[in-house]
Amino acid sequence: MHLTKFTDNALRCLIFLGATDARSSTVREIADHMGMSADHLTKVVQRLAALGLVETTRGVGGGVRLVREPDDIPLGRLVRETEQNFTLVECFDAATNQCPIAPVCALPPVLDEALEAFLAVLDRRSLADLLREPRRLRRAVGVTTS
Amino acid sequence: MHLTKFTDNALRCLIFLGATDARSSTVREIADHMGMSADHLTKVVQRLAALGLVETTRGVGGGVRLVREPDDIPLGRLVRETEQNFTLVECFDAATNQCPIAPVCALPPVLDEALEAFLAVLDRRSLADLLREPRRLRRAVGVTTS
Repeated sequence: MHLTKFTDNALRCLIFLGATDARSSTVREIADHMGMSADHLTKVVQRLAALGLVETTRGVGGGVRLVREPDDIPLGRLVRETEQNFTLVECFDAATNQCPIAPVCALPPVLDEALEAFLAVLDRRSLADLLREPRRLRRAVGVTTS
Repeated sequence: MHLTKFTDNALRCLIFLGATDARSSTVREIADHMGMSADHLTKVVQRLAALGLVETTRGVGGGVRLVREPDDIPLGRLVRETEQNFTLVECFDAATNQCPIAPVCALPPVLDEALEAFLAVLDRRSLADLLREPRRLRRAVGVTTS
């Protein structure tokens, strides 16, 4: 079981932006500092901008920056928005399901409950909870400005 | 986010065996009735046998059957055993991790807690909870013997 690379990179991007405060960073800088593909990160940043979490500006001094306070970015909502789907098992997607017992199976509600429990933990945490040690984070990614 | 096909097929196989009671079924029968690949199911059955959940017998009348009561097969334990890994994000696997903030990041404990909440729901359920309507299950898979 794993989250998508898209969600992983969205979380990393937000952690980087949160740890570097009001500093605006280019996609290339974020990708280089955080060990991500710039091409993939471009798509992630577009999604984060569409969600109203970051804004991007062009030109000299332009780049990506957070437009919400970290404590106003709940991780549960973020993961719900960045995961492409939560088809835990095949029958969660009626379009491709091949399991014949789907109409009478008691597994989906159990897995739904487990998934909700997973997301409920993330609902109780925000980006701010991931930024308790901004100096150590900046040091880890090689950003020395405060 | 999704469970592996291996876990999905393990669950389906156990539901089939539970719904058909003491009846011994071949891998081919289970695969045909449940819409699974027989090749893949063979590996799943080997794993379930290694876990002490089913036994396989050869020859005429042989096949696969449950050797534990359904209420003695907790779903949490099963999923823990059948998922190859729970590397929710890249840094959960130190061998392949490329994220530089892994040593100082606060995300892993949050995701660990969410994962435990997911599994805790499954720990409270057993195969028996998936077999409340065995007749409807048998009808759905086209097995008419009681």
